[in-house]
Amino acid sequence: MEPVNEETLPWSETDRGTTAFRRKQLGRAAGSERLGASLYELPPGKRSWPYHYHTGNEEALYVLSGEGTLRVGDEDESSQYPLRAGDYVALPVGPESAHRVSNADENGDGGTDEREPLRYLVFSTMNDPDITVYPDSGKLGLYAGAAPGGDSEARVVDGYYPHDADVEYWEGEE
Amino acid sequence: MEPVNEETLPWSETDRGTTAFRRKQLGRAAGSERLGASLYELPPGKRSWPYHYHTGNEEALYVLSGEGTLRVGDEDESSQYPLRAGDYVALPVGPESAHRVSNADENGDGGTDEREPLRYLVFSTMNDPDITVYPDSGKLGLYAGAAPGGDSEARVVDGYYPHDADVEYWEGEE
Amino acid sequence: MEPVNEETLPWSETDRGTTAFRRKQLGRAAGSERLGASLYELPPGKRSWPYHYHTGNEEALYVLSGEGTLRVGDEDESSQYPLRAGDYVALPVGPESAHRVSNADENGDGGTDEREPLRYLVFSTMNDPDITVYPDSGKLGLYAGAAPGGDSEARVVDGYYPHDADVEYWEGEE
Amino acid sequence: MEPVNEETLPWSETDRGTTAFRRKQLGRAAGSERLGASLYELPPGKRSWPYHYHTGNEEALYVLSGEGTLRVGDEDESSQYPLRAGDYVALPVGPESAHRVSNADENGDGGTDEREPLRYLVFSTMNDPDITVYPDSGKLGLYAGAAPGGDSEARVVDGYYPHDADVEYWEGEE
Repeated sequence: MEPVNEETLPWSETDRGTTAFRRKQLGRAAGSERLGASLYELPPGKRSWPYHYHTGNEEALYVLSGEGTLRVGDEDESSQYPLRAGDYVALPVGPESAHRVSNADENGDGGTDEREPLRYLVFSTMNDPDITVYPDSGKLGLYAGAAPGGDSEARVVDGYYPHDADVEYWEGEE
Repeated sequence: MEPVNEETLPWSETDRGTTAFRRKQLGRAAGSERLGASLYELPPGKRSWPYHYHTGNEEALYVLSGEGTLRVGDEDESSQYPLRAGDYVALPVGPESAHRVSNADENGDGGTDEREPLRYLVFSTMNDPDITVYPDSGKLGLYAGAAPGGDSEARVVDGYYPHDADVEYWEGEE
Repeated sequence: MEPVNEETLPWSETDRGTTAFRRKQLGRAAGSERLGASLYELPPGKRSWPYHYHTGNEEALYVLSGEGTLRVGDEDESSQYPLRAGDYVALPVGPESAHRVSNADENGDGGTDEREPLRYLVFSTMNDPDITVYPDSGKLGLYAGAAPGGDSEARVVDGYYPHDADVEYWEGEE
Repeated sequence: MEPVNEETLPWSETDRGTTAFRRKQLGRAAGSERLGASLYELPPGKRSWPYHYHTGNEEALYVLSGEGTLRVGDEDESSQYPLRAGDYVALPVGPESAHRVSNADENGDGGTDEREPLRYLVFSTMNDPDITVYPDSGKLGLYAGAAPGGDSEARVVDGYYPHDADVEYWEGEE
């Protein structure tokens, strides 16, 4: 397995106002099968993926440079932690690992001139299926056929559902 | 690990008209951790669980006694097979394994006097999470925190959703 | 997935004196991927595979007909249980699940005229790699590349080692 | 899950001549369950763990700083690649992922004054059991009860065996 250097990979960009970041999928480029790995770069004042946890995959973060804040934990009592280079965060499956990363201080202030981009790696197992939970919006995410970060063309189920759109088991059956 | 005999276990009963069956969860009673096993008994003319497939767990059937019919396969072109004692059916994850068992002949006739109950074992892996698909009703089933057949009290996600109730990823997020 | 009937499958035979049995691999014949299933038939007075446990795969037994004895449990204090039709035994990974099946009574007497063959199903997960332990002989079994019961041609490691043939980690390295 | 910073963790040291390195187990310190993560530091001219591959766990490397060389691949035709900051290497299970890292150039010269320590992260899944293969020494490594990098106190099997110390399946059994 040949090394790939992150400098040779293109960024994919997500920009939705306060949520804005760049990502390089290292694992896919290098031929990983059961380990996902991405390099993220968060501009000052911006946030990454919405607050969520996985029920099928464990994730972890390692901070390369810059500073920021991690919101993490049970939705009813999530905590804020400062992030800096050398920080490692374990995110096993379940509500205790709900998380969101931002390039801001704990007061939410990320727009000052001195802030640099927050660069960090995110690792994950690549289990399929996975169900993700978004406590702030009350949504569920479904991934079957390929893990989150995997080949979305291979999915037999792939969608997002309001938590309260559930019906009875026997609905529509006879 | 001590043997348990199926005669010592109580039946759980499901009766919803043409869908009616009895079940004993052998694996739970015996202390299984990663293998599910249930004994099913289908009265003449009745059917088991609605037509469905799993994306996270493989199942298998072994017929002990009686005769019946298996509908199995891709929803757009499912096939009917007769079932008899000694039949083994493999049901790996995915649409090709969508299935429903009935105690009827291939014409759907199961009410004659001569038919005996159809008795069969169902085996499964016990992976969590799992997403099930019900092609006839257009529903999805979600199980996170405990596999299907496992301890429903341990679930963090547990519900059924119409396939077309999906929303955009960013719905409700900022 | 089409049913296969056990009557259509050939027996494979093992005969080594007191250890003698016949087996049909139902799961392989039917196209199983993550669930192994075999039908075993033990003649009166005979025993199945040597006393062993798995560290990577869970197994389970279901007795179809006949009577016999199960030796099971921690090697230092294994127990004997009678087996009869309808018995289900869970064998999760680890020493508590070390087991051997025999077609004999608890006194080891299996040669009487009245005994019939003991017929039972064995189920297993199909995880790879697996390491098996044989407490009576002090051996270890290694399976990498395909699970026990899987395609032995696909194995990168496949062998049996005396437990006390171990060497230091740095042996032969520099 | 609270972040841990690598600066707060102690080094564990391995020093056996040309094989010498320091390691901090980030994943264990942070509470990871299914993802292993370690920070390694290789002095100039030194090498890490002996050339090996896993059959049960996928690994990956990310280079933080310094330069070095990776020997990787099928034992009969392994390749040498230079390593530098930003390199990511995927190491799925199997012989193609046999690998060893050294802080030297491709001529094996690592003793010059200009070389700095090679710092890199190693990630892994945490599956149990695992069997490792050491092609240069002809050894096998066995881990059952806890994955490599996990709690060695929890192991039921834990040892290293010469590949050619294997015996017949029936050795010592009756």
